[in-house]
Amino acid sequence: MTEHNPLSQFRVVGTRPVRPDGIDKVTGKAIYGPDHVAPGMIHGAILRSPHPHARIRSIDTSKALALPGVKAAVTGQDLPHLPGKSVSLGEGEADLANLSCNCLARDKALYEGHAVAAVAATSASIAREALKLITVDYEVLPHVIDLEDAARDDAPILHPDLRTQGAEEPSDKPTNIAFTFALKQGDAAKALDGAAAVASGRFAMPPVHQGYIEPHACVASWNADGQGQVWCSSQGPFMVRAVTAGVLDIPVSDVRVTPLEIGGGFGGKTTIYLEPVAMLLSRKAGRPVRLAMSREDVFRASGPAPGLVVDIRIGADAEGNLVGIEADMLYDAGAFPGGGTMLGPLVLSNMYRYPAVDIRTRDAVSNKPSVAAYRAPAAPQITFAIESCIDDIAAQLGMDPIAFRLKNALRPGDTSAMGMECGEIGFVECLDSANAQDHLKAPLGDNEGRGIAAGYWINIGGASSASVSLAEDGSVAVVTGNPDIGGSRASMAIMASERLGVPYEKVRPIIGDTATIGYSVVTGGSRTTFAVGRAVVQACDTIIADMKKRAANVWQVAEDDVEWRNGAVHCTAKGNDNAPMTITEMAENANTTGGPIAAEVSINPHDSLPAYGVHICDVAVDPETGHVSIKRYTVVQDVGRAIHPDYVEGQMQGGAVQGIGWALNEAYIYNSKGCLDNPGFLDYRMPVASDLPMIDTVIVEKPNPAHPYGVKGVGEVPIVPPLAAIGNAVKAATGKRIRELPMSPDRVFAAINGGK
Amino acid sequence: MTEHNPLSQFRVVGTRPVRPDGIDKVTGKAIYGPDHVAPGMIHGAILRSPHPHARIRSIDTSKALALPGVKAAVTGQDLPHLPGKSVSLGEGEADLANLSCNCLARDKALYEGHAVAAVAATSASIAREALKLITVDYEVLPHVIDLEDAARDDAPILHPDLRTQGAEEPSDKPTNIAFTFALKQGDAAKALDGAAAVASGRFAMPPVHQGYIEPHACVASWNADGQGQVWCSSQGPFMVRAVTAGVLDIPVSDVRVTPLEIGGGFGGKTTIYLEPVAMLLSRKAGRPVRLAMSREDVFRASGPAPGLVVDIRIGADAEGNLVGIEADMLYDAGAFPGGGTMLGPLVLSNMYRYPAVDIRTRDAVSNKPSVAAYRAPAAPQITFAIESCIDDIAAQLGMDPIAFRLKNALRPGDTSAMGMECGEIGFVECLDSANAQDHLKAPLGDNEGRGIAAGYWINIGGASSASVSLAEDGSVAVVTGNPDIGGSRASMAIMASERLGVPYEKVRPIIGDTATIGYSVVTGGSRTTFAVGRAVVQACDTIIADMKKRAANVWQVAEDDVEWRNGAVHCTAKGNDNAPMTITEMAENANTTGGPIAAEVSINPHDSLPAYGVHICDVAVDPETGHVSIKRYTVVQDVGRAIHPDYVEGQMQGGAVQGIGWALNEAYIYNSKGCLDNPGFLDYRMPVASDLPMIDTVIVEKPNPAHPYGVKGVGEVPIVPPLAAIGNAVKAATGKRIRELPMSPDRVFAAINGGK
Repeated sequence: MTEHNPLSQFRVVGTRPVRPDGIDKVTGKAIYGPDHVAPGMIHGAILRSPHPHARIRSIDTSKALALPGVKAAVTGQDLPHLPGKSVSLGEGEADLANLSCNCLARDKALYEGHAVAAVAATSASIAREALKLITVDYEVLPHVIDLEDAARDDAPILHPDLRTQGAEEPSDKPTNIAFTFALKQGDAAKALDGAAAVASGRFAMPPVHQGYIEPHACVASWNADGQGQVWCSSQGPFMVRAVTAGVLDIPVSDVRVTPLEIGGGFGGKTTIYLEPVAMLLSRKAGRPVRLAMSREDVFRASGPAPGLVVDIRIGADAEGNLVGIEADMLYDAGAFPGGGTMLGPLVLSNMYRYPAVDIRTRDAVSNKPSVAAYRAPAAPQITFAIESCIDDIAAQLGMDPIAFRLKNALRPGDTSAMGMECGEIGFVECLDSANAQDHLKAPLGDNEGRGIAAGYWINIGGASSASVSLAEDGSVAVVTGNPDIGGSRASMAIMASERLGVPYEKVRPIIGDTATIGYSVVTGGSRTTFAVGRAVVQACDTIIADMKKRAANVWQVAEDDVEWRNGAVHCTAKGNDNAPMTITEMAENANTTGGPIAAEVSINPHDSLPAYGVHICDVAVDPETGHVSIKRYTVVQDVGRAIHPDYVEGQMQGGAVQGIGWALNEAYIYNSKGCLDNPGFLDYRMPVASDLPMIDTVIVEKPNPAHPYGVKGVGEVPIVPPLAAIGNAVKAATGKRIRELPMSPDRVFAAINGGK
Repeated sequence: MTEHNPLSQFRVVGTRPVRPDGIDKVTGKAIYGPDHVAPGMIHGAILRSPHPHARIRSIDTSKALALPGVKAAVTGQDLPHLPGKSVSLGEGEADLANLSCNCLARDKALYEGHAVAAVAATSASIAREALKLITVDYEVLPHVIDLEDAARDDAPILHPDLRTQGAEEPSDKPTNIAFTFALKQGDAAKALDGAAAVASGRFAMPPVHQGYIEPHACVASWNADGQGQVWCSSQGPFMVRAVTAGVLDIPVSDVRVTPLEIGGGFGGKTTIYLEPVAMLLSRKAGRPVRLAMSREDVFRASGPAPGLVVDIRIGADAEGNLVGIEADMLYDAGAFPGGGTMLGPLVLSNMYRYPAVDIRTRDAVSNKPSVAAYRAPAAPQITFAIESCIDDIAAQLGMDPIAFRLKNALRPGDTSAMGMECGEIGFVECLDSANAQDHLKAPLGDNEGRGIAAGYWINIGGASSASVSLAEDGSVAVVTGNPDIGGSRASMAIMASERLGVPYEKVRPIIGDTATIGYSVVTGGSRTTFAVGRAVVQACDTIIADMKKRAANVWQVAEDDVEWRNGAVHCTAKGNDNAPMTITEMAENANTTGGPIAAEVSINPHDSLPAYGVHICDVAVDPETGHVSIKRYTVVQDVGRAIHPDYVEGQMQGGAVQGIGWALNEAYIYNSKGCLDNPGFLDYRMPVASDLPMIDTVIVEKPNPAHPYGVKGVGEVPIVPPLAAIGNAVKAATGKRIRELPMSPDRVFAAINGGK
């Protein structure tokens, strides 16, 4: 399976060895969140609100507690009140009061499915039975589901104390607008009024779910001495530690979090729902407690990507130079504030050069589950609007859509409206590569259309730790604190193998728990191969330096007379005949040269480079039904350098597929009572293999100078372009610009037929 | 609970805080070897030989495999043959062929209880049922249990290929003598023949068991990709990894060992019995497999301390100067060679100055379980002989026994017969301290006697790793690879707390698994607080240096202008007003000063110093029954420095108690069929609380310059003197020198009554 390009400067980087966790995962041996068991463990269950908005007058758990086998019951009153408290997650913060209320409602249930109480019992069935014995006295309140309704002055208010953060004129009036931010540069209105070509409109899209396969689950044990342990799958055990300890208001050192295998996160597992509740139940019961969500719970109560409504206007002069952009974005926060809306403006500004900018973004709460990150958070939504407009302007000017983008794309040396100084970004290279694809020349049939769209993602860095140690037979343990979601075990092993000159098979990548490896922020933000990989390489370099020092000592030569190459120390002192010592020999003799050979490195890099991608999509639109099918799809993306091309391609394909689902099918459907009507994969329609062609991938490699092997970051940007690429393809096929998602058959049929 | 001596130079070292694992252990929350469960786990059981010596003609497991619920069966044929292969354990080696045959017999069963086959089934009862369906065709062979019988030329031979290692004249004749070593300096015979006082005799003692509370148990999972995991309690997960991988002949990196809490080891858990068998069963069954010994299994098949027979002669001149020593030792190896007999000569030579030495030691195999380490291996046995003779010589010369020892004790600057160069050892200080004890002046009643005896232990160092990292709230994780047997979590936390200037309660000591911390040899040899503690302190120093560097950077001053004291960095640059930054502040801001603060250190020190102790014991001998009761007992010991005095005293008390049991009660009793007649705590009599007075302790502190806080090592030497101290007290009470253990009522009665 391992191929090797003889022209490569690398021995292992860029090859495609089998992933270390592969066989475990395909044989069902891997232990995911719901699989974990602990000695003496009992089973928890959560009671959830049937109402989207209701005051909780009282909760009576006494009958549940009287049921034989029930060991504990908790409500929101058991959690500490933490007004105004937040906790740093390295990259970003978590509002503990909101997080706590999301884990267990206090005075109000804010969405259907909101957790209101929990029990633990000796069996899962007794726990479920006990839930029926809990009496909750609700006062049902008017609810608001629709985003634009929620933003209105007369909307039902979710949080009476909420005031708009970032507002220029602070107001004391209750509101659902949680956050606002505005950026003005130049006179965008004037520029657009005088533009040769302008595209504008209102784009709208509902919340969509990440659709990870594995529901949230955990086992928690909180002992009599106050020390707790949590086993769960997540995108970061240190995140789980910080927020679990934060919500419980205990020192982080009292919580040890062991990561289990994760069955997909896509950003949705960068927060928690169950862990503090399981901890409370465990403390009351004196036993480890398991809590797990059902698929319905996941849809009703975990965080989807926010919906967006945006009014946008972009224009260009007759030569095809963009002259300005106006955008007014309203993102959906769900039940609690904090949707991370600065990302919308960032994405708006970091693709093209705009002489004038006038943008505003807002964040509104509504009676839906609190939103969470979803792959390139906020970017697919706003990019749907941007890239639809860009395409329309190119069409108005009669320009090729790629040529038009090339003319305006940010390049190294540029500074974006939001202040990004462009280093070795690869947007232009992606557009050039897309332009060269055969795909563009392939003929199209009747009712078929081709669209292209670009996308940007920031690619973060962040706190990362790695430990590298040699076993006595020369095999190498590489420990990091980051769960493997997209193949990072393989990438870490490849980088260590490359650096140390040992075979890939001799490297064992390990995911440590919070007690055994230094602090590391979540696996997310497309940061892991870049930042954690850099820590791994630095740890390898540290043990190489150590081995050189030891060899100098053994040979009684100066350190400068020892060279490291091909996995061995070589003596370069004149007139010596010291045979080289391989890393295996160094490992075998470590005890006689100074003890075990190991190093731990912690870093916090913030100098990664953004990712750009360009997608090309062919669709066929059935004029009888409005059904859109994807005929051909190509993803072009600058990745810096692909450490393991299979997993890079897998990310590119997976991102595109999730974007296709978002574009065509997915949406939360609420009924008039404010309850979710499609909380399952039968009714919430995600694309399956038979819906899709092979997703072709083109890896562009413009190395990142800030990473020893040039890595930029891969996982997120591929979900950004598909919404617009498909919209542009549908327009090419039908002549109709669809501005609302999903482009489901009914909506497309209506568009074709002028409103049906 | 935390006391503090205001005169101490230390803030935390020397205080007695509650141990971090204490509440877990007393509330039953701690997970010991037999407690672990794994998802999908099934249950193994082991079939053991009913014969002490038998050829295995064939084993038929087909009927067992046909029983519903049985998933796998293995025999010795499933293990690779590894003639001549051994594996390094850092300190010492393991013979893999022998270890493998001890885990599962091949062609011969060598002792009653020797494992011959194993099964795994969906329940423990099915597994036990399946054992009954296994047919083993045995050819019973003559056996030999008695050590001296085993050493005879005409003894039944256990290993036809065994040849005596270390023999001056190699022979091709089959033998049970596995090893021999001799040391001659000067003319000991001549010196002794001309001595003013001589004590001599044959001393003999049977094997005794460590008597740890927790039987051996493990869970193993060996996946389809060849990677295995083992969860077990042991004295060292890296030892378990090395020998499990070694016996299975797979790379060590394919085995990950997670240590569980250990319920006592005392040396008996520095080897393995179950792990490779559980791995094999798991591979065949495709499921995690649990294996656990019963108490009977522990007695019949785990390793006791070797019995010893020694002919010894020691003499002194009229002034009380020792003139020479002769000793011929025969240690029992049990079924397989490798009892570590170099330790006998070491102990013989490292207490007193002898101008002439003539010693020989041998090791013989017999049809009993293969011996293992037991607290100061080989030392209590030979010291029983030495210190009995020393006492007798002092008596002959009319000298005070302490004064006589003081006259001959090794002191700093001396070199022992085996070449030990005495550094800052504290033998003389212990004798002086013993001499000053009130205990010596207490009146004795009728039939009561007082004995004193000294003891030596080498105190090893060895490969040790530690990682120290700061959490975002300033709490400190201290990870080591060494199971906590005697309170090492507390000692590590104290040393880190002392060094970093943070409260003890903010330090979380963690025992890492083999994948998450650098290589570390077992918790044993009284090495942990010395060597692992030194690694912890060095890791603290590394992060202190890192924090100073960061502070210099923040303050824009030279590193030399930053000082670390009282848990904070201070700016000493002239004319500056930078406020000090505490470690908590440094931790909170770590992400803005260079990332997480963490360091891992691996060392391999071999410069510890030996331990010496002196015990004073009062006994009452019942002339009617020969029953010996301990009336008063004082342990005086040089520990270098006591990090946590409670656990130091606990070690001193526990060692004395085990020695008392060894002296008075414990012995393996074999019947004429070669089967153990007392494989349980009812018949194998260990001392219980009601058998004992409070054991008084006197800590002598002569600091070890090789440890930052002066630690020497504590755990082993207290088991060394009791055998002789009690023998000397019995002689004082009765006038009779007893040279055979245990000094059980029948034997003492016989001695009093001239043979009865």
